[in-house]
Amino acid sequence: MPDDWSDPPPRQPLLVVISGPSGVGKDTVLQRMKERRMPFHFVVTATTRPPRPGEVNGRDYFFISNDEFAEMIEHHELLEWARVYNDYKGIPKQQVRDALASGKDVIMRLDVQGAATVRALSPDAVLIFLAPGSEEELVHRLRERKTETPEGLKLRIATARRELDRMKEFDYCVVNRDMSLEATVDQIIAIIEAEHSRVNPRRVTL
Amino acid sequence: MPDDWSDPPPRQPLLVVISGPSGVGKDTVLQRMKERRMPFHFVVTATTRPPRPGEVNGRDYFFISNDEFAEMIEHHELLEWARVYNDYKGIPKQQVRDALASGKDVIMRLDVQGAATVRALSPDAVLIFLAPGSEEELVHRLRERKTETPEGLKLRIATARRELDRMKEFDYCVVNRDMSLEATVDQIIAIIEAEHSRVNPRRVTL
Repeated sequence: MPDDWSDPPPRQPLLVVISGPSGVGKDTVLQRMKERRMPFHFVVTATTRPPRPGEVNGRDYFFISNDEFAEMIEHHELLEWARVYNDYKGIPKQQVRDALASGKDVIMRLDVQGAATVRALSPDAVLIFLAPGSEEELVHRLRERKTETPEGLKLRIATARRELDRMKEFDYCVVNRDMSLEATVDQIIAIIEAEHSRVNPRRVTL
Repeated sequence: MPDDWSDPPPRQPLLVVISGPSGVGKDTVLQRMKERRMPFHFVVTATTRPPRPGEVNGRDYFFISNDEFAEMIEHHELLEWARVYNDYKGIPKQQVRDALASGKDVIMRLDVQGAATVRALSPDAVLIFLAPGSEEELVHRLRERKTETPEGLKLRIATARRELDRMKEFDYCVVNRDMSLEATVDQIIAIIEAEHSRVNPRRVTL
């Protein structure tokens, strides 16, 4: 029997991916988590699109040039990246490594395809799928984004349906009902707390 | 893709075992969970020992005769049982089955050996190990039970050390520090919440 039996196991930092279909409310949930001032590191995404009014470099995104982005891809410095319309978005690996090394849990928001990429790279990541309370709620939220043409909306809905079918690739599912944002955030925090209570903790590698 | 994609998966009731070494505070933690009035079913143990002043049959224990206990063993009606000094204690299976059938999570307090028995019978049970903040805390708590002779205390400590070494057979470890009862209960409730968020839920069989 070891001499140090009474010491609790050291707390291993987690890599937590919050994902789910388009329109489910990922950004709102992340925003609320930030407001709660939990001791997490929230990943800042790098993007080639220009900043919108009010957006701050390093807080909302890292705004970088196409050349810089291409170089990061070439040097495998992105954990995950995607083309969104005519722009590129990606997660700088070093940022995640640094945060994990400092002992902080790392939280990132990714689309369903991005979550699958992270799972392949880092099998011990905690994958949380946000699901809508119902199909109606999701369609309603997609419709409220007035930026869509009717055809654009149809495509969005079709994509969301296909994304919903990938829930089974995730570890946890949290239903993000309309008007229950606090409950959604509480449930995510409970999942993170429970993961830290595992006798066999996950060990994130990148 | 299924038509009912938007329905959250039905909530599967859990069988939760709270265990840990003698002196770690299992009874106090269970008592606090009951006071919080969570919608759990707390298992009532059957015992052959006579009731102590203030104990109520069916609330604190089911007080039954040696003959009745022997019959329950014979008919495999006990999930787990043990001899404690000259008395017998056991968990009636039917009580657990009825509570699970009603959709309630079932919480039971067991010693480490009992938890191992439940794991073997029901691999999908959630096993939570309560650990002391330190060896000193545990010894102090065992010492405070004034009922012990010095030899009895030594045996208790040796047993507790052996029990601590079995933590690795459990799913979760919660450190029950002195003066942090609420945090312990919060962590257990977070574990139960997280288990209910699993994409692949446990399915308890008995």
